[in-house]
Amino acid sequence: MGLRERKKAETRERIADVAAGLFAARGYDEVSVVDVARAAEVSDQTIYNYFPTKQDLVLDRAEEIRERYGRVVRERATGTSPAAALRPLVLEDIDRLRLEPPELARGEFPAQCLVSPVLRRFALEERERQADAITASLAATDPEVPTIVARAHAAALVSVVQTITDAIGAAVLASDRSDPLVARLIHDATDALDDLDRTFRSVTTARTGNA
Amino acid sequence: MGLRERKKAETRERIADVAAGLFAARGYDEVSVVDVARAAEVSDQTIYNYFPTKQDLVLDRAEEIRERYGRVVRERATGTSPAAALRPLVLEDIDRLRLEPPELARGEFPAQCLVSPVLRRFALEERERQADAITASLAATDPEVPTIVARAHAAALVSVVQTITDAIGAAVLASDRSDPLVARLIHDATDALDDLDRTFRSVTTARTGNA
Repeated sequence: MGLRERKKAETRERIADVAAGLFAARGYDEVSVVDVARAAEVSDQTIYNYFPTKQDLVLDRAEEIRERYGRVVRERATGTSPAAALRPLVLEDIDRLRLEPPELARGEFPAQCLVSPVLRRFALEERERQADAITASLAATDPEVPTIVARAHAAALVSVVQTITDAIGAAVLASDRSDPLVARLIHDATDALDDLDRTFRSVTTARTGNA
Repeated sequence: MGLRERKKAETRERIADVAAGLFAARGYDEVSVVDVARAAEVSDQTIYNYFPTKQDLVLDRAEEIRERYGRVVRERATGTSPAAALRPLVLEDIDRLRLEPPELARGEFPAQCLVSPVLRRFALEERERQADAITASLAATDPEVPTIVARAHAAALVSVVQTITDAIGAAVLASDRSDPLVARLIHDATDALDDLDRTFRSVTTARTGNA
């Protein structure tokens, strides 16, 4: 990365952190882009250059995450279910709860999408896009599974991600990052993904006759 | 129903039909509540008395439908899967495609939620509420299934409903209500619900040891 690119990446990260701090303190709906610009000591236009809309300040990794979901499902090894392919990403989300500074976590997506109805709505649209990305990967890797069935399986996978993300958000808001809580999240995620692992095998077995 | 109630029900239905006609002709986003009031020859306030928000003109049966999904899953017979309990409702939606006057169908939910981004967003929120209603019914009838697993199964069921509703909407917009199309919709719905029937049995069998 050149000096110019590094400077841009730093500015972007600084703006996102300042925004997270304001969202943490006052809630997403109560903070304007102008507030963020003032606190970050940059112009409104600078914010818009990095984050075209206000929700991008919170959902700025959405596209990257969605592509990652699609990629791990598409590039999974033969015999690996979509649930198994997604498992490391879900566990990584839980792990981040332990590692992230609490004051930043409170201003970020899992917590704020429980606090802000506006953000919740954007999040639902993003969940749809995630399900569509996984459906496309399933169509590419398991063409014998009809689209409507692949879409239902993708929706179930995204529901598990969403349930865990919401539980992480609730934990952040409650300032609870205790070991028992983390253990329960890992247990729930594993349990649900194990079910979807079995489910997908039974679906493909019924279609192809292969165990 | 008394005379007063019957008159109210008639007014309500007339407003909804006038709105559907305008939405069909110009698209949901291009029609205001004032436009509907003028075309129906009633005051704006009358419209709001029957339909508190504009989206209620299209989503006015949403609550009833959601409660019905929850109820058929909650009240299903022992040994009947949630997918089997929902099947008649999905087939009824497909049947309506054959029976409804095309000019009204074009202004109603399945078609308009493909045309209007605003309505699409409301529809996504309603899908969430449907999944929550089914999850609550599963928790009431199958307490051994963890909530995260029940929620994933409910999301898969709602995804099937959504895929079929979208296909109905696309058919309405394409003015296609041919026998082969209807047969394909019935086939797809049955296929996907059969999978979810097997899936749910395998989930509960794994938990309870009962076949």
